[in-house]
Amino acid sequence: MTSPVAAVPLPFLPHLPVVEGVEVLPYDPTDMDTLPGDGREVDVLSLPFVAGRWMTRMDEVPGLRAVVLASAGYEHALPHLPSGVDLANAVGVHDTATAELAVAIMLAAQRALPTYAHTQAAGRWDRSGAGQRRSLADSHVLVVGYGGVGRAVARRLVASECQVVAVASREREGDELVERVHGIDALPTLLPGADVVVLAVPLTDATRGLVGAQELALLPDDALVVNVARGGVMDNEALRVECAAGRLRAALDVTDPEPLPDDHPLWSTPGVLITPHVGGGTPASYPRMGTYLGRQLATYRDTGHLENVVATG
Amino acid sequence: MTSPVAAVPLPFLPHLPVVEGVEVLPYDPTDMDTLPGDGREVDVLSLPFVAGRWMTRMDEVPGLRAVVLASAGYEHALPHLPSGVDLANAVGVHDTATAELAVAIMLAAQRALPTYAHTQAAGRWDRSGAGQRRSLADSHVLVVGYGGVGRAVARRLVASECQVVAVASREREGDELVERVHGIDALPTLLPGADVVVLAVPLTDATRGLVGAQELALLPDDALVVNVARGGVMDNEALRVECAAGRLRAALDVTDPEPLPDDHPLWSTPGVLITPHVGGGTPASYPRMGTYLGRQLATYRDTGHLENVVATG
Repeated sequence: MTSPVAAVPLPFLPHLPVVEGVEVLPYDPTDMDTLPGDGREVDVLSLPFVAGRWMTRMDEVPGLRAVVLASAGYEHALPHLPSGVDLANAVGVHDTATAELAVAIMLAAQRALPTYAHTQAAGRWDRSGAGQRRSLADSHVLVVGYGGVGRAVARRLVASECQVVAVASREREGDELVERVHGIDALPTLLPGADVVVLAVPLTDATRGLVGAQELALLPDDALVVNVARGGVMDNEALRVECAAGRLRAALDVTDPEPLPDDHPLWSTPGVLITPHVGGGTPASYPRMGTYLGRQLATYRDTGHLENVVATG
Repeated sequence: MTSPVAAVPLPFLPHLPVVEGVEVLPYDPTDMDTLPGDGREVDVLSLPFVAGRWMTRMDEVPGLRAVVLASAGYEHALPHLPSGVDLANAVGVHDTATAELAVAIMLAAQRALPTYAHTQAAGRWDRSGAGQRRSLADSHVLVVGYGGVGRAVARRLVASECQVVAVASREREGDELVERVHGIDALPTLLPGADVVVLAVPLTDATRGLVGAQELALLPDDALVVNVARGGVMDNEALRVECAAGRLRAALDVTDPEPLPDDHPLWSTPGVLITPHVGGGTPASYPRMGTYLGRQLATYRDTGHLENVVATG
């Protein structure tokens, strides 16, 4: 086999390990006038974090065999995938950033940081803001979805002195963080014991509407619902009603619909913290993308195929 | 030795383990009309988290031998300590709550949560808020002060994929979290490599003004200064100047002066997050106080003295 050729976005280069036997052609992802590989045949095309505009031009790259996305989601690439080309998504690359935001908004909600943001803006030293009424430590936290994000959340929570209970699609043995991973069928029996629930599942037919009014009703008073998955995994209106009644609280990086419209009542519902889907893609994602891409290129060199192929055009 | 008698605030009782051979007399710390022990002789007096009003009445408790504070600081108790009575402070009880807030405000600053609190209040989905520009993961964090709070911070940071460097008054071997603990003399050589500095030292003559203009100048651009110690361990005006210039950022639970006056310029300095000294005393402090008090009462029963005696009247 001749040396495979890979076109790689410039921002990934400083983080890409040397992969012997693979020729790397850098390209500027902001320069839409120059095609990745500049007209040369390219075996593997690595797309940048913001890939939207390149999707429609994949079919212009001569000789293309495989594409590595920089996102976990891949639905947006499918309509544009050239015939016979393999598509791999980015596995694990954004877990750190997403888990970090999950814990950040969880801590912010427990320690009343939004309240202090407002008293600071008003220039007032006001200790009545409930910042000492709750803690994350000692909380029983139910992590729903125990993939890369869920495990990264669990690692942070264990170090934060929480009691972590993990739930995944299928029951299985635990790891160094949790004794066992419960199956999703156990959710109704686990919700009543949860001070905090973190949703970290992919949105699939099986997880759409996973947490509805019935599930929310099983949570104890004052429980915190954290969503860093997708808005569609829960009934946002049922959550809003519970929060408006003062019974539950929420910290949401994702909503349904999204973007949340300017006049949506969720913005001003008491006890609801909202960030505008900023979980993924911090600077931490660059070295992790570089490591992942290096592994993918080595695999392609050795086998002629990528790992984590999610579709073929 | 006859059974020692201990007067214990009611809120601590559910968390106090049974200490055989010690008679526990509960008292209501909100009822200033009834003396702890109700006139009986009391060997050990446990004071509540909010102890201010009881300080002046310690000398009314007959037979008193020792006092256990519920706070780490004890300066406020010294003027009121009756002659011959030992005073112990609360060691480790608030470490969890304080470390938790340190990490909460650190994450909030890195992920721009105050900005999102304001865009949420305005009902706007605005992703321009820099929440993805920085991460805590991969940050080099300098933890200054490696006692209970510093170690609890370090544990959370290691799980958050940070590079943690610890500094204490004296150089010593490390632990499971850091390879070694640097001596405070190394501070000038460590500051230039720190993305984040966390101050977690007690305020003493040795630490007053520890971080001044000179030390701040050694930090790299955009570094975050986190203070959960005491306002007096740093030069707050020098910090304000660096932040106002856009060179450094800060997340402060303690200030100097404190409370920060309504018209103080620090409130509105860009890149500065302020919480009003709410680090300690969350619900997590109750079980830890109960455990600590149980150990103290057992020690007193066995030896006739408390541990961690910081003063004798």
